Amino acid sequence: MPHQLFVSPGACSLGAHVVVRELDLPVEIVLSPPRDPASRIHSVNPLGRVPALLLDDGTVITENSAILPFLADLAPGTPLFAPAGSAERGLIQSWIGYLSAEIHAGGFRQVNRPERYAEDPASHDGVRAQSKRTLHAAVAHIDRHLAGRQWLVGERFTIADAYLGVFVRWIARLGPEFAAFEQLNRFREAYLARPAVQAALAAEG
Amino acid sequence: MPHQLFVSPGACSLGAHVVVRELDLPVEIVLSPPRDPASRIHSVNPLGRVPALLLDDGTVITENSAILPFLADLAPGTPLFAPAGSAERGLIQSWIGYLSAEIHAGGFRQVNRPERYAEDPASHDGVRAQSKRTLHAAVAHIDRHLAGRQWLVGERFTIADAYLGVFVRWIARLGPEFAAFEQLNRFREAYLARPAVQAALAAEG
Ligand SMILES: N[C@@H](CCC(=O)N[C@@H](CS)C(=O)NCC(=O)O)C(=O)O
Ligand SMILES: N[C@@H](CCC(=O)N[C@@H](CS)C(=O)NCC(=O)O)C(=O)O
Repeated sequence: MPHQLFVSPGACSLGAHVVVRELDLPVEIVLSPPRDPASRIHSVNPLGRVPALLLDDGTVITENSAILPFLADLAPGTPLFAPAGSAERGLIQSWIGYLSAEIHAGGFRQVNRPERYAEDPASHDGVRAQSKRTLHAAVAHIDRHLAGRQWLVGERFTIADAYLGVFVRWIARLGPEFAAFEQLNRFREAYLARPAVQAALAAEG
Repeated sequence: MPHQLFVSPGACSLGAHVVVRELDLPVEIVLSPPRDPASRIHSVNPLGRVPALLLDDGTVITENSAILPFLADLAPGTPLFAPAGSAERGLIQSWIGYLSAEIHAGGFRQVNRPERYAEDPASHDGVRAQSKRTLHAAVAHIDRHLAGRQWLVGERFTIADAYLGVFVRWIARLGPEFAAFEQLNRFREAYLARPAVQAALAAEG
């Protein structure tokens, strides 16, 4: 049995899905939306979250910041990543960590799931509004970094870019105050033009 | 000049500091509290956050989920980590990702900094209370995993445990509802008994 990557349409699992296609890895893509209680994801990951990677030996790896490097290491020497011990590998992992912690878990999460951070429904609009400001500042840091750069690290598309594409797509739906990030708008076009991204989006439906 | 690791007393940088001491790495520890505007951290990391690792070639690596593996890779073959491509490395990186994203950025952050997620001060107590519930559920996942295990992965102390020690110490201060995690209480004792942990805490003062 090959490794299996559990993904859901529109979710943060798109980055790992794109990496599988960019590298043409022998990994089976399993569409398994968490909101469907019958989805296999609930038996594979006790947290019921995508992405999850089920290895052929039964090991389950969760978290984008672990799955993305693991997938790239299935293709040693790939330009999508860098060798263990190199500064470039540190920088690629750093951007992945920033996206996962500061943009997703400490930004989008509060905008999308205010009920997890405030019980009183009357305060949810206020939580959404302030969380958008915090997220805006965190996104601006990426936009500044991309000035004069095509991709996040090392002038080539890496697993950090595969993952950034997730959030660049989500940002487009957050409202007009997120529309003016020039570098990110440019990045979005370059991302969506990649055949592997188009194939992943088509497969997710 | 050796690599320099910027840390602050009581901060999440303790895990990386402990790794430097566990492995006796040639990395200089620089105490640089972000709340002091004169701290060097503000020129090293534009986000003004610890930990940050300044390499001897001038590269700056931020994010625990990047710094911890980078440090371990300075000692290839160390039992604190595992080789690129191994399932164990994936699992160690997965726990680090979970701690950074789900426990820190999507848990403690909202408890400690409600003003970033709700503008109205009248709602901050409510944000703190509900965020503690969300954090409690995220912590319980770790406590369940540790049942019957001494450390997070592979029956030995790894960089994931060095990092978990940060949060196990913070949890102890969150209130009585966080006092009953039996595995985490056991973990805390084993963590604090390690000479490298004691040396790091003493150096941070
Ligand atoms: N920290 C995790 C977050 C994973 C996550 O939040 N996944 C979402 C999709 S974007 C999910 O599966 N949500 C379903 C749920 O929470 O029920 C990571 O980076 O992998
Ligand atoms: N996602 C980052 C979070 C780093 C972080 O929040 N560091 C805190 C200390 S625990 C800090 O430096 N805070 C100072 C500030 O935000 O001004 C990581 O995992 O490294």
